[in-house]
Amino acid sequence: MNGVDILGYSAGFITTLTFLPQVIKTYKEKSARDISLNMFLIAAINEVMWIVYGFLKSDMVIVLTNVVVLGMSLTMIFFKLNYSRNMNS
Amino acid sequence: MNGVDILGYSAGFITTLTFLPQVIKTYKEKSARDISLNMFLIAAINEVMWIVYGFLKSDMVIVLTNVVVLGMSLTMIFFKLNYSRNMNS
Repeated sequence: MNGVDILGYSAGFITTLTFLPQVIKTYKEKSARDISLNMFLIAAINEVMWIVYGFLKSDMVIVLTNVVVLGMSLTMIFFKLNYSRNMNS
Repeated sequence: MNGVDILGYSAGFITTLTFLPQVIKTYKEKSARDISLNMFLIAAINEVMWIVYGFLKSDMVIVLTNVVVLGMSLTMIFFKLNYSRNMNS
């Protein structure tokens, strides 16, 4: 594994963590008014596409990365639908 | 180009659009209180890593995809820093 590979794996690992601060913030504050539902709907559909693509390519890195991000996207969709009513929280 | 390739390119194209609904919503509403700054900071750093990786691999699809998403992430960071003071907007 050379430096370029290490960079790629590191970038992929960080990609899986991208939505985590948003999930934690929204869970703590129970407020999602400013969050775009469409963003996380597009993300979730997109991750399903990547998971199918990963399976078809037998690329488990793509599959697993996107399973993690899909889980966080679905969590954000759930939060958005449940916490958006708290207009003044 | 077979069906798997088409799926991959389609998934990549949709990836570039993921942050767009959030950028539009935040621009319109001028409110970013519920947005995680850390999420977009991590995303921006991550996209720079992917851009460098794309250059090192001579993969312009990776480079261009991440340039688009980096632009949207930097826009969201700018919005977050400017609109978070509007606590009641």
